Amino acid sequence: MGFSEDNLKGFILALVSSLFIGASFIIKKKGLRRAAAASGVRAGIGGFSYLLEPLWWLGMITMIIGEVANFVAYAFAPAVLVTPLGALSIIVSAVLAQFILNEKLHQLGILGCVMCIAGSVVIVIHAPQEHPITSVQEICSMATQPAFLLYVASVIVLVFILIFHFAPQCGHSNVLVFTGICSLMGSLSVMSVKALGTALKLTFEGNNQLLYPETWFFVFIVATCVIMQMNYLNKALDTFNTAVVSPIYYVMFTSLTIIASVIMFKDWDGQSVGNIISEICGFIVVLSGTILLHTTTDFERSSSFRGSYASLPPALSARLCSGNGEFMKHDEENQLPAEAVCLQRQEMH
Amino acid sequence: MGFSEDNLKGFILALVSSLFIGASFIIKKKGLRRAAAASGVRAGIGGFSYLLEPLWWLGMITMIIGEVANFVAYAFAPAVLVTPLGALSIIVSAVLAQFILNEKLHQLGILGCVMCIAGSVVIVIHAPQEHPITSVQEICSMATQPAFLLYVASVIVLVFILIFHFAPQCGHSNVLVFTGICSLMGSLSVMSVKALGTALKLTFEGNNQLLYPETWFFVFIVATCVIMQMNYLNKALDTFNTAVVSPIYYVMFTSLTIIASVIMFKDWDGQSVGNIISEICGFIVVLSGTILLHTTTDFERSSSFRGSYASLPPALSARLCSGNGEFMKHDEENQLPAEAVCLQRQEMH
Repeated sequence: MGFSEDNLKGFILALVSSLFIGASFIIKKKGLRRAAAASGVRAGIGGFSYLLEPLWWLGMITMIIGEVANFVAYAFAPAVLVTPLGALSIIVSAVLAQFILNEKLHQLGILGCVMCIAGSVVIVIHAPQEHPITSVQEICSMATQPAFLLYVASVIVLVFILIFHFAPQCGHSNVLVFTGICSLMGSLSVMSVKALGTALKLTFEGNNQLLYPETWFFVFIVATCVIMQMNYLNKALDTFNTAVVSPIYYVMFTSLTIIASVIMFKDWDGQSVGNIISEICGFIVVLSGTILLHTTTDFERSSSFRGSYASLPPALSARLCSGNGEFMKHDEENQLPAEAVCLQRQEMH
Repeated sequence: MGFSEDNLKGFILALVSSLFIGASFIIKKKGLRRAAAASGVRAGIGGFSYLLEPLWWLGMITMIIGEVANFVAYAFAPAVLVTPLGALSIIVSAVLAQFILNEKLHQLGILGCVMCIAGSVVIVIHAPQEHPITSVQEICSMATQPAFLLYVASVIVLVFILIFHFAPQCGHSNVLVFTGICSLMGSLSVMSVKALGTALKLTFEGNNQLLYPETWFFVFIVATCVIMQMNYLNKALDTFNTAVVSPIYYVMFTSLTIIASVIMFKDWDGQSVGNIISEICGFIVVLSGTILLHTTTDFERSSSFRGSYASLPPALSARLCSGNGEFMKHDEENQLPAEAVCLQRQEMH
């Protein structure tokens, strides 16, 4: 129940991050629409005219600010607190879409938003306090404890099996393969991002950690994990519908990150059983809210387009960004009104 | 966070109550179906053949056992804990309906169940411990404290305004009028049920409370409130669709009961802010789950019957039962397949 100053900072940063990431989708989408209206070619079809559109770049900058805030949040608060709050960016998007893009939010979508908020509040209230970390060596010793090494080894083995055995066989028919790879790698990304963030935080506080090879080792791990995660996330989104990938990815990624954090940072040590159960329930509620939001958005679309809704090819933008808000990025393509696309296509002929 | 022995007893009784009440709907519905199949006339249309059906009576007995368990639960645990758990009876019904009546549960319905459970767990974990009550006079002094008298007065004034001003004007067009009256009365019912239950509990423990006029006063209050509540609940269900009435009634009734309990029994005194907020969030989650369950059940129906689904007249059974699981009782009529109704109506001509 302890809500330390560091937890508060991390919480506010996570909120700011969700605000920026959520808003960035809307700004980018508005930019894409404008670019499409000006040139008549959509990003999903292969046009690059949006690169000349200032709004799209503003969206990119907003997203980068959001991702940086998210990165810094991990330096202050436990991953058990920061990661599930990523779901709030979906709410920001959904609400802004209603006001700025005039997209109607389904009533059940509102219920999904309410649940995400209620679940987040429960998570925030029960977030554990972190043991203060004083050096990068301390993080290293946490990362090399047997339990966490076992976790890392299991993740690597699983990822190898998925990449070399399952991906060629059923990667394009089973959504769990690519999504599983990027969720597994994602949990390691967050752990290494947290290690690096803490090292940088200590450096800014005057306790220079850049002198130690451990810090640079974490830079390398962050880069490797994030690149792999992004690569397989793009494969998943290339192959399957966003509405299918997003909730599955969110569930797996967040669950694995929490497990990794609990093992490495011993987040739940000294917590009461009630606290831990409340936190898990809060997490389940946020997951349910996320699923509901995605399901109803999809339902709205498919019912209004009478089944003509098809998965659109992903745009370059998907490859340009990174971080935990990423599971939504293709929405900017998919949520463009089908009628607008038809009109544009007719105009082209 | 304290989970006392009394809270545990109350919690188990509330669970048992939900199990029995949830099961009773299914048993009664099976009885109604059988009676309809035997006689060709449905209860909703005016047949009484179900009174000859043993299954229907078994359902009634199951429901009465559930209501008694619910009544006893209030004697042990705070209303803040017992009332929201009433939502679990919907889950029991939904799950049993799938296995026994072969009604398909919508995927979002499953999500609703998960949410109701997660929210209930959060509520149970954060339920306040009650101050031990030693005599009916103590309850009386609680009931006559200025804050609670103000609540009772406001309820009575509101009910009068609703009955004499709004009911004749828009009772048959606005669902909030009748539902509001029975929710307001319901909160007083629960408070008086709790007072009476505590008095009986003390009596069984050897501390006879039946000697005091206060106990008999509470008997009178219970009878008055429950009768008014049932009367207006039946009016609401007579006038509007169950799928509309149920979630609204559940939200208003549970919220008002919690407010009344917090005022009268000072449930939240000495509780930490985190505890109270968690409890409210748990409650919001259970509400959302309930709404989702009802909405999706309705959606399933309306989509498979292509809009031909109409509100059916309520049956006598609705008038025979009482208690907090009541908001579901008409489902047994509404959930009878529409085709069966059409067939029966055609047969009648």
